[in-house]
Amino acid sequence: MKHVAFGGRLVMLGLGSIGQGVLPLILSHIDMPRDRITIVTADARGGAVASELGIRVLVQPIDRQNLRDVLAPLLEAGDFLLNLSVDVSSVALIELCRAAGALYLDTCIEPWAGGYTDPTLTPSQRSNYALRESARALAVPGGQLPTAIVGHGANPGLVSHFVKQALLDVARDTGAGGEAPATQAGWAALAQRLGIQAIHIAERDTQVGGIAKRRGEFVNTWSIDGFVGEGCQPAELGWGTHEGALPADGRRHEFGCDAAIYLMRPGASVRVRSWTPLEGPFHGFLITHNESISIADYYTVRDGDAVRYRPTVHYAYHPCDDAVLSIHELAGRNWQMQPTQRLMMDEIGSGMDELGVLLLGHERGAYWYGSRLTIEEARRLAPHNNATSLQVTAAVMAGMVWAMEHPSRGLMEADELDHARVLDIMRPYLGELVGVYSDWTPLQDRARLFPEDLDRAQPFRFSNIRV
Amino acid sequence: MKHVAFGGRLVMLGLGSIGQGVLPLILSHIDMPRDRITIVTADARGGAVASELGIRVLVQPIDRQNLRDVLAPLLEAGDFLLNLSVDVSSVALIELCRAAGALYLDTCIEPWAGGYTDPTLTPSQRSNYALRESARALAVPGGQLPTAIVGHGANPGLVSHFVKQALLDVARDTGAGGEAPATQAGWAALAQRLGIQAIHIAERDTQVGGIAKRRGEFVNTWSIDGFVGEGCQPAELGWGTHEGALPADGRRHEFGCDAAIYLMRPGASVRVRSWTPLEGPFHGFLITHNESISIADYYTVRDGDAVRYRPTVHYAYHPCDDAVLSIHELAGRNWQMQPTQRLMMDEIGSGMDELGVLLLGHERGAYWYGSRLTIEEARRLAPHNNATSLQVTAAVMAGMVWAMEHPSRGLMEADELDHARVLDIMRPYLGELVGVYSDWTPLQDRARLFPEDLDRAQPFRFSNIRV
Ligand SMILES: NC(=O)c1ccc[n+]([C@@H]2O[C@H](COP(=O)([O-])OP(=O)(O)OC[C@H]3O[C@@H](n4cnc5c(N)ncnc54)[C@H](O)[C@@H]3O)[C@@H](O)[C@H]2O)c1
Ligand SMILES: NC(=O)c1ccc[n+]([C@@H]2O[C@H](COP(=O)([O-])OP(=O)(O)OC[C@H]3O[C@@H](n4cnc5c(N)ncnc54)[C@H](O)[C@@H]3O)[C@@H](O)[C@H]2O)c1
Repeated sequence: MKHVAFGGRLVMLGLGSIGQGVLPLILSHIDMPRDRITIVTADARGGAVASELGIRVLVQPIDRQNLRDVLAPLLEAGDFLLNLSVDVSSVALIELCRAAGALYLDTCIEPWAGGYTDPTLTPSQRSNYALRESARALAVPGGQLPTAIVGHGANPGLVSHFVKQALLDVARDTGAGGEAPATQAGWAALAQRLGIQAIHIAERDTQVGGIAKRRGEFVNTWSIDGFVGEGCQPAELGWGTHEGALPADGRRHEFGCDAAIYLMRPGASVRVRSWTPLEGPFHGFLITHNESISIADYYTVRDGDAVRYRPTVHYAYHPCDDAVLSIHELAGRNWQMQPTQRLMMDEIGSGMDELGVLLLGHERGAYWYGSRLTIEEARRLAPHNNATSLQVTAAVMAGMVWAMEHPSRGLMEADELDHARVLDIMRPYLGELVGVYSDWTPLQDRARLFPEDLDRAQPFRFSNIRV
Repeated sequence: MKHVAFGGRLVMLGLGSIGQGVLPLILSHIDMPRDRITIVTADARGGAVASELGIRVLVQPIDRQNLRDVLAPLLEAGDFLLNLSVDVSSVALIELCRAAGALYLDTCIEPWAGGYTDPTLTPSQRSNYALRESARALAVPGGQLPTAIVGHGANPGLVSHFVKQALLDVARDTGAGGEAPATQAGWAALAQRLGIQAIHIAERDTQVGGIAKRRGEFVNTWSIDGFVGEGCQPAELGWGTHEGALPADGRRHEFGCDAAIYLMRPGASVRVRSWTPLEGPFHGFLITHNESISIADYYTVRDGDAVRYRPTVHYAYHPCDDAVLSIHELAGRNWQMQPTQRLMMDEIGSGMDELGVLLLGHERGAYWYGSRLTIEEARRLAPHNNATSLQVTAAVMAGMVWAMEHPSRGLMEADELDHARVLDIMRPYLGELVGVYSDWTPLQDRARLFPEDLDRAQPFRFSNIRV
């Protein structure tokens, strides 16, 4: 079923796991001739998929120098730049699109190559907070600029829509009821009224393959460069108003919206306690993500300059088991990338991506809302995808539809889109969508064998969550 | 080839991975009729192996109440009790043997069931330090008691012999040369003279199977009860004289030999930096082990009551990958054992156990000496073993031979045996025995992305080693 007809040209940057996986969805749901699509990518990966689908590929790594020469001729008013690459600056691409009058969408606000691990930058400068601020600087209130959606994959992206749906569910189930808010202020007030203290992006990827991880190999179900890049950035989290003192290694950025803090260590070295319905309690990695900052910012209640309410928001990521081993090995190598990489796709034998948001602190305790997508169902639904990529690629396609439907909204984050419309478009690709309440708290079963310094009065404070 | 003829009866307690694996070695190298062997064990496991070998099994879990009734009739002067069980107190068994005049050997000083995780005990009381002190209390200087060897598997056990060989190698290669010392004081003085500051038991088990670890399953290459038990004990380490302040969570025991400290957290939650020749730098778990304490104690140089020299000694264990995942899951469950367990044996497809000692701080920097035993070679050498178990079972057999050759030495630890004799007996089962120098230090590649609080003047201090 086609959701929208598109008259412009589409340039897709990057043809990795997400780029390959999104092509069938674009062709199914966006009405446009495939000869108006051009893929620009850095290497031969994915070439077979593109040629199977009859789509033109230009192999040309983009850098600061050639950006304009390569891409400007491909983009005019009404065209679309879909950025699914790594190592190309999102801000530079948005500026290019704006100049051309073209629409834009990415799944991650990326810096130029090396930006995540440039030792000449401070940790704050290498953070997603700083990347987001640099993108937010492009927002022009009230302007009629071409729509540029940043961070619209699964997470960041889809999970922002899950937060809204989960808030509505908790409101309904606690009798706080009422209509879906129509403004940022309305959504933030709802979260405050419900008493939400913390929001985890709680994800458990159980996909496993038949090939054991080898020594010196990083294995994952999606971009290994992407994951290692963000895993080596400082851990970052939206910092809520119910928190006490900053962690000893926690720092404020001292510029920008101030909705988030960072820790003076790589996110892949920080573990947090979280919970999903199928996994139960688990340790996830506090990998920095754009949504940790954007959601905390979006759900901030202000009174003039004073912040009255904000939830703590962060990722609690249990990647696939082979990636847990890969991180353990990477840490042992002091964060120097393994010599080989393997993005699992066809060899996946079983498993699912259980991806959702965990809302903590309301009347019913904990509420997880999200998607359970198995590898079998993902394969049935769309070629060239696994469970992880399909949650991303469906969000990319849905975000593109929304942008085409609303072409003049300027810079947009997932939190600012219409969650009901986006979820409607995505629903066929999300497997089981479930909401489950739980009495889980990070204090459960603690301090049994050893004394622990717990804040029993404030169960959902980060000091209790962090391992 | 038979190393010794034994005229007594042999009672073997436990028929798990080690019990099953040691039987073929005993039958090959100790000259005794198999109808003089009785196995007492808690369950049906291993029954097929025993009956294949024609050895009698009595299934009878031993506890405080039935210990004497079940075992006393089986043990007279000149008999041997080989304890390869979990959950039966080593001290109680040694006392029983002593009363009967029987020899004794175990691979781990075990408490009664639940002793590792009894929340009514303090962490110090649940430590291996306390268990070792309780065994050491049975030592009677100058007495002619039946030999009872405690902690003589691979580690504890074999690794104490590796330390001596490694010291002799470093002495030779740095020109500090000379004869092998003949006394504890001589060995300790050698270690001091060479400038050894820290000794890691540095182990990397790379064995992998064809079955992926399932959710809620603990997988390992040796006793899962044993591993989880010790993993939940406090982290413990011999505490050397080159160290500075105690770690914030470090404690002295305030009784006993004072050679070791403990940390107020489970060992399986503490990671340390270490190095093996094939793995390179890695993160291992600081699981408490008897040898961390016994080696530190043995290599202590005293001047009256004053301690002049002692190395820091601890385990840096990288178990097989499925066990790394199992620990990650167990931690997420707040150390409550997974519902299912799988001891990998026949399904192992490849890998090796690289087990050795890493001597740090001498003139040549770092020296690793140890065994590289592949699963293929282990299978070729002895049935019913994997690479991990064979390093243990060969040590058990060799220790038994030594005890039979020296039947009246009373309580003995591995450090007190004749390492050359034991290694000679074991050599055919250790795969490649290798010694490799390295310039590795825990300061390598540190503080690249984030500032770290490093003690650059004292590279081998524990504060640099701990993750
Ligand atoms: N929001 C989400 O949920 C989510 C999920 C997965 C991935 N992502 C992001 O999507 C992006 C793509 O992920 P993936 O798994 O497909 O990555 P991948 O590593 O599989 O592929 C990256 C692609 O980018 C191309 N590329 C690299 N450098 C380039 C350059 N200089 N110019 C042009 N192309 C270049 C590569 O050739 C490759 O085709 C990453 O930024 C990742 O962080 C977001
Ligand atoms: N020093 C080393 O290098 C080393 C290495 C591996 C194992 N170990 C130790 O060796 C011991 C055995 O290891 P494994 O891998 O064979 O363990 P396992 O878990 O495979 O087997 C344990 C055995 O003990 C028996 N058992 C349990 N409770 C008992 C009881 N109450 N009475 C009698 N028998 C009982 C079980 O029936 C089983 O046969 C453990 O204590 C372990 O810590 C030491």
